[in-house]
Amino acid sequence: MAPAYTVFYGTFIDLPRSITEEKLALDINHGTLWVSSVDGRIKGFDWTVHSEKELEAFLQKEGWVEEVENMQNGVGPQEKVKIVRAREDQNEFFFPGFIDTHIHAPQYPNSGLFGSSTLLDWLERYTFPLESSFGQKEEEKEDEGKEVAPPRAHTAYKQVISRTLSHGTTCASYFATIHVPATSLLASLCHARGQRAFIGRVCMDNPAFCPDYYRDASAEESLARTEAIVSHIHTLDPKGTLVKPILTPRFAPTCSPAALSGLGHLAASYSPPLHIQTHISENVDEVKLVKKLFPEATNYADVYDRFDLLTRRTILAHAVHLTPDERRLIHSRQAKVSHCPASNSALGSGICPVRVLLDDGITVGLGTDVSGGYSPSILEAVRQACLVSRLLGHTLPAEKQTGREKLSVEEALYLATRGGAAVVDMAGEIGGFEEGMFFDAQLIGLGSPLSDVEESADLASGNVDLFGWESWPEKIHKWVWTGDDRNVGAVWVNGRLVHARE
Amino acid sequence: MAPAYTVFYGTFIDLPRSITEEKLALDINHGTLWVSSVDGRIKGFDWTVHSEKELEAFLQKEGWVEEVENMQNGVGPQEKVKIVRAREDQNEFFFPGFIDTHIHAPQYPNSGLFGSSTLLDWLERYTFPLESSFGQKEEEKEDEGKEVAPPRAHTAYKQVISRTLSHGTTCASYFATIHVPATSLLASLCHARGQRAFIGRVCMDNPAFCPDYYRDASAEESLARTEAIVSHIHTLDPKGTLVKPILTPRFAPTCSPAALSGLGHLAASYSPPLHIQTHISENVDEVKLVKKLFPEATNYADVYDRFDLLTRRTILAHAVHLTPDERRLIHSRQAKVSHCPASNSALGSGICPVRVLLDDGITVGLGTDVSGGYSPSILEAVRQACLVSRLLGHTLPAEKQTGREKLSVEEALYLATRGGAAVVDMAGEIGGFEEGMFFDAQLIGLGSPLSDVEESADLASGNVDLFGWESWPEKIHKWVWTGDDRNVGAVWVNGRLVHARE
Repeated sequence: MAPAYTVFYGTFIDLPRSITEEKLALDINHGTLWVSSVDGRIKGFDWTVHSEKELEAFLQKEGWVEEVENMQNGVGPQEKVKIVRAREDQNEFFFPGFIDTHIHAPQYPNSGLFGSSTLLDWLERYTFPLESSFGQKEEEKEDEGKEVAPPRAHTAYKQVISRTLSHGTTCASYFATIHVPATSLLASLCHARGQRAFIGRVCMDNPAFCPDYYRDASAEESLARTEAIVSHIHTLDPKGTLVKPILTPRFAPTCSPAALSGLGHLAASYSPPLHIQTHISENVDEVKLVKKLFPEATNYADVYDRFDLLTRRTILAHAVHLTPDERRLIHSRQAKVSHCPASNSALGSGICPVRVLLDDGITVGLGTDVSGGYSPSILEAVRQACLVSRLLGHTLPAEKQTGREKLSVEEALYLATRGGAAVVDMAGEIGGFEEGMFFDAQLIGLGSPLSDVEESADLASGNVDLFGWESWPEKIHKWVWTGDDRNVGAVWVNGRLVHARE
Repeated sequence: MAPAYTVFYGTFIDLPRSITEEKLALDINHGTLWVSSVDGRIKGFDWTVHSEKELEAFLQKEGWVEEVENMQNGVGPQEKVKIVRAREDQNEFFFPGFIDTHIHAPQYPNSGLFGSSTLLDWLERYTFPLESSFGQKEEEKEDEGKEVAPPRAHTAYKQVISRTLSHGTTCASYFATIHVPATSLLASLCHARGQRAFIGRVCMDNPAFCPDYYRDASAEESLARTEAIVSHIHTLDPKGTLVKPILTPRFAPTCSPAALSGLGHLAASYSPPLHIQTHISENVDEVKLVKKLFPEATNYADVYDRFDLLTRRTILAHAVHLTPDERRLIHSRQAKVSHCPASNSALGSGICPVRVLLDDGITVGLGTDVSGGYSPSILEAVRQACLVSRLLGHTLPAEKQTGREKLSVEEALYLATRGGAAVVDMAGEIGGFEEGMFFDAQLIGLGSPLSDVEESADLASGNVDLFGWESWPEKIHKWVWTGDDRNVGAVWVNGRLVHARE
């Protein structure tokens, strides 16, 4: 019998519930926190437990005993628990798992390949050719006429899940391709590996924009294939504990009005309504194109709103060039924004004015936007969110600079955890260490301080160098700016261990 | 007896001699290249050697035999050589070592600590307190009255050298502190570890800007202490084979006119003149301050020029906000620029218009600017140089956008190697794989492609994922965008192995 609880012991760091606090500070606690093996939720915590001795007393008080290997069943009235420790001398701590609110799984093999392109030529040159290859049939099965996911999809999807988990991403909102078998495979792989995921088959049926070799044949086909994926995922994970479907019109130019309208109806036909994800206002040429393609709409956001695609469960990626009217509309519909700074810089799209969005009451999370973004790491997105916010003032005319453009490290970490949770409409469920939340978390280790090291310092365990005088907030800043996947010791989703560093 | 030559075999990639080519492409060659053990210089190459069999024939032709362990002396007329292979199946290749043209060694322990500060408050809050601690005397030696480098200097300097080497930096132009013992220590450590280095004791004697707890007592003291360091380094490395002194007025506001004038004279009193490094036009408030402090100068660059500090051996860090007049002056003096994009973004300084500098004929290299920059990696500087160049257009009024602001990956790699070599006035000596150049190089490995991997893919050896279909230029792009120190297998300076991955 598995232990009833896992007791985590050590330092726990997360962000407060609201980003609107004047000077956002980390919540830093030391003690124990326990998670039920039945549902993976946090059942309680005790921040008065500060030593192994106090941990022992705590276990005794609860009537728990630490599970050891080869333990015999029936040791008495005490309940077995598993204990996971964050070692203080190794500067280990528990942190909420990262939430990637915008990532294109099939583009992962193109990470780093974008040259000096911008959105529209990048799609044509790098992206559509790669994505379309996820529909190739396996040769040996071709004569049977059955569409199956090609080997490339297996390799790429397995790797993108492994990589994102290894970087501490416990929840990802994935764009897949237009293909049903490969998209079903992505859902099944996430479910098997235990990553929390939203899986979207990409809808793109507009021949005026999509290439002939890569699009849905019609709006009807687009909707039918979408329903097939929704049905697959609902069968795979009926309660949506880990994997949920998300309707995914790629972006306005790729979709016919009939497809957009059908998707809006499809979302609303479920209770609760289905999640939706798309792109908005990433690039100035794209904004012009949308204006041309949808002359009846007052603006880009209005295109989605006309088809009932702006909902409280809608994720809008990028939102770099929104007008005040669009921000008001998005806020009024409670739609969410995924900020993808690495991608916006890489493709030269511009800088999303995150503070303006927050001031307008819009919920914001972070996305890697692989492979417009070159990295599967949300920690890299945290860094880039900070960096571009420090350049934002330089892009604005003097009268528009407020001096409040900069995001602090703490604010960027908020976006990566609490913000992301709200973007996927799971605020209060993931993104922090509160009672009742799912335990989606990572164990971060920064290593022992250099002053303790006699001869040559350890280079292999990562780039974070501590010198022994750093406060916890300073350690966190060093982790953000110099850390990487080498600092991710272990990752849990729903209380289940899904990644451990080799 | 050591072998007379080291023969390197495999793929060699470097950049052409000039960045002004229309579409800069990588030079990619496969074959052998041999380096003399006597002076560490490249003595020749043969790009027709493409297999182990051809390598064998090549050795025979040269009268060379591979050295093996326990080889007996006097095996005949053949000369022993050491062979180092870049393994094709592991996607290994030789690349020129990176040149960091601007790094503050004592600030390394502060990497990642800058909050939301900008240049002038960052100096006061984070930097001066840390740097000043490199002058603390060891307690046990205090009564002897002899100034020695404190333990902190040993720890920090050893680590920054280890880290920069592990990231492939074969040559660095270091700012130290104002202290003679700690600065001498840095020079000695670089010399012992075999890193090519320019070592500068920081001059700062202006009480109107520098804090009382951290400055030279007078211009005379500033010059005398500088001469002490120059002398130490000339004794340590009389021919300047590895380590050279560099005069280092921190930046105009920290120096009295007497100190600036004295340094200008000191540089010119040597033949060839001494190298010089300083900061220029990093931040708009700094530019205003300089205008106020030096009202007689026509602009910031003119301050340095008046004191004969703008020479062909001068490195000017940042150059974000130069006027056309300043660019003309810098070009006419053949002074060089160190572009530090990570730092400029982190401190919100702005974006250096690299293309404009290049178009004006100014030589540009890359700098990490640790710890204004958060990373000791020039590969990170390459990435950031590309990223900020893709945002630069958004900071310019429409009439100033040329569409040529973007740096390609190849151009940024040029800045990191050939450009840096020219910035430290060593063009033709380091930065590429030409006959007669010093072999300052790194062995990069990207691992085997994923399609060859049966079960779970290797995550531990770094983040670069190859799928087997990438061309060499694509592999290089993936290395730049997703690589890190885990891909640096070995590093040589002057043909000597100075780092090997654990």
